Amino acid sequence: MKAMKVLAVAGSLRRASINAAFCRALVQLGPGRVIASEHPGRLPLFNPDLEAEPPAAVGDWRAAVQAADVLLLASPEYAHGISGVMKNALDWLVSFEGFVDKPVALVNTSPRAHHAYESLQEVLRTMNARLLRQSSISLPLLGGCVTETAMVADASVRAAMQGLLRTLDAELTGMADVGPSVQW
Amino acid sequence: MKAMKVLAVAGSLRRASINAAFCRALVQLGPGRVIASEHPGRLPLFNPDLEAEPPAAVGDWRAAVQAADVLLLASPEYAHGISGVMKNALDWLVSFEGFVDKPVALVNTSPRAHHAYESLQEVLRTMNARLLRQSSISLPLLGGCVTETAMVADASVRAAMQGLLRTLDAELTGMADVGPSVQW
Repeated sequence: MKAMKVLAVAGSLRRASINAAFCRALVQLGPGRVIASEHPGRLPLFNPDLEAEPPAAVGDWRAAVQAADVLLLASPEYAHGISGVMKNALDWLVSFEGFVDKPVALVNTSPRAHHAYESLQEVLRTMNARLLRQSSISLPLLGGCVTETAMVADASVRAAMQGLLRTLDAELTGMADVGPSVQW
Repeated sequence: MKAMKVLAVAGSLRRASINAAFCRALVQLGPGRVIASEHPGRLPLFNPDLEAEPPAAVGDWRAAVQAADVLLLASPEYAHGISGVMKNALDWLVSFEGFVDKPVALVNTSPRAHHAYESLQEVLRTMNARLLRQSSISLPLLGGCVTETAMVADASVRAAMQGLLRTLDAELTGMADVGPSVQW
């Protein structure tokens, strides 16, 4: 089974962000195949007038998305909504041809929160992403297990993350056979 | 009846944005009492680590919000979601004491779109804003009437906007009597 290239994207710029730590921990567990994206924090605010000649940071973000086999989005929920940082990054992809049919998995590290998670699903469906159901997981990381080091050290969290990487490979490979029917 | 100070906030940075044109047209119809906010486009991406000593643009945005009697939000819908620009501006207000109980009206200039409008309601309720039901309107402006000049020149649109300003005054004044029961 081919190991797929994963771009792991956190929706928070907080230094101690659990979602960002999750993305970095995944890089440790999938060396060479998972990249923790720093792009959302470098993007300008979305302006449709700049689409024709997008700023360099937008070009970098789109190139990284295009190069990845799958995007893994880990967004916090702010006031029952998608974080502005994550939505802004997605807004820059709405008219980007390279995003159409892009496989996307969602990770919810705060399972008590569901509004942002559901809004993200609606937005991604509208953007014609290919939502990966089996690879979209809730993983309660609140409490002690909030740093990259703690996540990798915790046997059950590490097992869940390794399982996620296997499921991603399986779902993506399976998808090649069954086509769009695995879309949500 | 006291005329209230309105801060009209568009959620798009597009130069030809209908929502921004709506806000500027409202300034023409309510001279001295309506301000079209330029703040969302000047804000950095939200970062909770900067809350303690927020950048100047954030301080300006919060001061403008605090000084207004009411916020009028006109956001486009991008991919069935709130624009990242608008959500980012709101994210900077989540922990801002001056936003609690702030009266907010929503204007939907694309009535066929409803996802972003509903998401905005959920977010604002969660932020303890005071949503103004009567002053939240749908105003179909697609078609010919997409510039500030055209909106002010069009008798029915002008009447709708003048009616909105009257309703805002009435709802805000009434609110002082009836208290939180007019919240959504």
